[in-house]
Amino acid sequence: MTSDNKDKSEEGQSKNALKKAQKAADKAAKKAEYKAQKGQTDEGGAEGSEEDCSKGLYGDLAMIRSEEERPVTHIALKDLGRPKANQTIIVRARLHTSRGKGKQAFFVLRSQAYTVQCVVAVGEKVSKQMIKFICNITKESIVDVEGKVMNTDQKVESCSVQDVEIHVSKVFVVSSALPRLPLQIEDAMRREDDLEGLNIKVNQDTRLDNRVLDLRTPANQAIFRLEAGVCQLFRETLRAKGFIEIMCPKLISAASEGGANVFSMKYFEKEAFLAQSPQLYKQMAIASDFGKVFTIGPVFRAENSNTHRHLTEFVGLDLELVFTHHYHEAVKVIGNMFTEIFRGLRDRYASEVATVGHQFPAEPFKFLDPPLMLEYCEGVAMLKEAGVEMDETEDLSTPNEKLLGRLVRAKYDTDFYILDKYPLAVRPFYTMPDPHDPTWSNSYDMFMRGEEILSGAQRIHDADFLCERAKVHAIPLDTIQSYIDAFKYGCPPHAGGGIGLERVTMLYLGLDNIRKTSLFPRDPKRITP
Amino acid sequence: MTSDNKDKSEEGQSKNALKKAQKAADKAAKKAEYKAQKGQTDEGGAEGSEEDCSKGLYGDLAMIRSEEERPVTHIALKDLGRPKANQTIIVRARLHTSRGKGKQAFFVLRSQAYTVQCVVAVGEKVSKQMIKFICNITKESIVDVEGKVMNTDQKVESCSVQDVEIHVSKVFVVSSALPRLPLQIEDAMRREDDLEGLNIKVNQDTRLDNRVLDLRTPANQAIFRLEAGVCQLFRETLRAKGFIEIMCPKLISAASEGGANVFSMKYFEKEAFLAQSPQLYKQMAIASDFGKVFTIGPVFRAENSNTHRHLTEFVGLDLELVFTHHYHEAVKVIGNMFTEIFRGLRDRYASEVATVGHQFPAEPFKFLDPPLMLEYCEGVAMLKEAGVEMDETEDLSTPNEKLLGRLVRAKYDTDFYILDKYPLAVRPFYTMPDPHDPTWSNSYDMFMRGEEILSGAQRIHDADFLCERAKVHAIPLDTIQSYIDAFKYGCPPHAGGGIGLERVTMLYLGLDNIRKTSLFPRDPKRITP
Repeated sequence: MTSDNKDKSEEGQSKNALKKAQKAADKAAKKAEYKAQKGQTDEGGAEGSEEDCSKGLYGDLAMIRSEEERPVTHIALKDLGRPKANQTIIVRARLHTSRGKGKQAFFVLRSQAYTVQCVVAVGEKVSKQMIKFICNITKESIVDVEGKVMNTDQKVESCSVQDVEIHVSKVFVVSSALPRLPLQIEDAMRREDDLEGLNIKVNQDTRLDNRVLDLRTPANQAIFRLEAGVCQLFRETLRAKGFIEIMCPKLISAASEGGANVFSMKYFEKEAFLAQSPQLYKQMAIASDFGKVFTIGPVFRAENSNTHRHLTEFVGLDLELVFTHHYHEAVKVIGNMFTEIFRGLRDRYASEVATVGHQFPAEPFKFLDPPLMLEYCEGVAMLKEAGVEMDETEDLSTPNEKLLGRLVRAKYDTDFYILDKYPLAVRPFYTMPDPHDPTWSNSYDMFMRGEEILSGAQRIHDADFLCERAKVHAIPLDTIQSYIDAFKYGCPPHAGGGIGLERVTMLYLGLDNIRKTSLFPRDPKRITP
Repeated sequence: MTSDNKDKSEEGQSKNALKKAQKAADKAAKKAEYKAQKGQTDEGGAEGSEEDCSKGLYGDLAMIRSEEERPVTHIALKDLGRPKANQTIIVRARLHTSRGKGKQAFFVLRSQAYTVQCVVAVGEKVSKQMIKFICNITKESIVDVEGKVMNTDQKVESCSVQDVEIHVSKVFVVSSALPRLPLQIEDAMRREDDLEGLNIKVNQDTRLDNRVLDLRTPANQAIFRLEAGVCQLFRETLRAKGFIEIMCPKLISAASEGGANVFSMKYFEKEAFLAQSPQLYKQMAIASDFGKVFTIGPVFRAENSNTHRHLTEFVGLDLELVFTHHYHEAVKVIGNMFTEIFRGLRDRYASEVATVGHQFPAEPFKFLDPPLMLEYCEGVAMLKEAGVEMDETEDLSTPNEKLLGRLVRAKYDTDFYILDKYPLAVRPFYTMPDPHDPTWSNSYDMFMRGEEILSGAQRIHDADFLCERAKVHAIPLDTIQSYIDAFKYGCPPHAGGGIGLERVTMLYLGLDNIRKTSLFPRDPKRITP
């Protein structure tokens, strides 16, 4: 158990204990393993002279090295339920918890987000030795359990499978866990508001240092299933609209957005940088006639930002498309894509949303169809009305974005909206200025729960005009020559945007930290595991 | 026109000419642009005093800056055909080629893989000035053309749209190309075997230096549509089997596979490396109970290999899955996944395959269902029978892989097969040895047209055994500690593999160079554009 307060002091003490325990366990495991390689199992019953009526029904399996091809008769834990009642089944799962109680043992098996109760009692084929063996299996070990599925009289409230339990006849350990875990899964999966006053909160660094364990919680299993769903819905929606997926290089020869916050490295005899966005490559794909493109891939920012919403490596969902007359054609496509994603998450991932909500309670995400679009100056007016003092051509601060999100939600009942026509001065040089008023630009951000999740614009598709705008921004032309060259051989008008995957997942689920939605997060202080 | 032989000498001469031409064109473009920003067009007919009956029907459009939202009435070039006959339509496309012929002009419009012929003749509403204007539009410029769709008497063999042409009434330039192109699309799209004796071959570096132009050829448009299809089919097949997509970090704290050939960089106060494979992270996802995972992302190799099949950055399609008793359970899933991919490419991408084949002729790709699986020693026996002298525990050289591919095709009539049970000595330390004979291992490669496209194995899922095998390979344990730690808290047996996307596309289409299937290829000598 890792407590939030005692974390540091305990660490020193426990490290030695941990090492010792590990050494002993390693030795035992090794011994068991090699003993077991000859026969199939390291059977119990050796320690006493007492006859063991369960001989061959429990023990440590030899390491599975693909000895022989056999039919797979195991069933998935998630398929357990009343329809399987009275059948004898085999499952492979983790030992989540166990307790002995006289001549009985109760244990819970866990597989992904599912848990089931198992019961074993001394009897004709169950020896005391077998009960003892089961009670000594370390938590998180992977076991093969054979038993009979039995209806329960009352719901097993502590398990996800509530209407049946397994009456166990065989137990074999497939892969054993070290006895001392750096964090307890039971603690790591506890509902946040149940923790008040308790000293069992697993703090974030402990979780991330031991991510392999942390990811086993039902909430984490659900978070990353839903995150995969965001990618899938993004692709599905865009493919249906005729978009084509492209792959953009991450190794580039010039810093993509001005040179700041970029990782650089030696590349044979030259220097290379890590792309801060696929922007140039999406636009080159447009200039190459692909018409509508999207790409999903890592994006790198060497920015020393230690906040709840910044990562040094995140996953970008990027898209770019031609339009005919007006960039609002593109904004509509992007806005409707978000509606499709939100609808898909709501309808297809309800169980994942519920599982995450069980540990991290949040209000359901609200959206409108079609999505709400406000002009930037309208947003500023709302803020001013709420007492904020700001100029309408000033950029929005993060607190003001948050506040505007709350104001918009109160007025329009939506957690998603589009803010269109940003001041030209606060956008990158390649942004198309408004044709009627150079104060504004053909650019937009999109927000979820008051945080920006997409930034985009009509891009300048004319090489000369691009040079002119770069000069205004004091960007040396030679550093962006290949970017400019891409527009010299005819390029259709186009617009697009880039989305941060981890932010979308975090904000859809109402989570408080982006490290919760990155499988192996990277920030200025963390590059492991 | 860039000829293969004259390339170098011409380059020096033409660079100056090119620069001059560009400067002039830039100036003209700028002038036209600003003139045009006020009115809608820079209309023709200004140069002579002669009355222009086509006034307002042609000219340079002002740069499209989203002046007003208007209904989009343009149709896609690919939708042109007999059903549209006698209708007046508008298309936006590139001017592919044009020629004046007395009082007429013929030009071809191109959009993606589609081309259509256009005709315009002096008449009531078409002036000589308009014809002249059209003939002066630079190739590759983007134009809006309005006209009547007319059935053709005989097939227009030179275009993809063969049964209709457009009788043009209006032409506006949306985005003009510089007059001098670094390569001609007509040359870049010529069938390879039509080039013999002709000096118009566009060599590979010219293509890649000007990738924005090169990618406009129908073959390239088709290659990257098919490549997107490979990714889509990979995901579709695996998702249907219950796999979940994961995102693996590319910035890592230790060189993933032994330290050679890895890009390194400064990461704030530490050092970081670029992942050479997502192997560790896939396996951690397995140890975290995700069960079956796949990931698509860039893979980096700082290897100074200048061959037809090596890139320093490529796209990896990686997968990893638990199995119950034997790794062949996993091999079957992977093998059948390839069958699904090949079937999908054949059935859904027939037009793309045909388009590519038109420029780069190749034999159709053959595969069996279920796929052929041979043991490594069987493969070696076939090679020996064909006269190759080698030891059966030696690794296959690239020429021997190629030869074996031909032998397998002759004997089994398939371009895809699996070679199972490689010698343990030639595989990485984390490969599970064969349980019956330590000469061999539970590992496999998969081949297309005699080239390796997947390498995989059952991985060692036991921390102690992994340490033991690392010692045999003389790998210092402290460099792989986090890898080993991942297996200390229970891990199910699992297997997987990594696929090179560009190789799959190249070999499916029978292309000769991997740079043809990477949108913006990276090799030791190339990191631009």
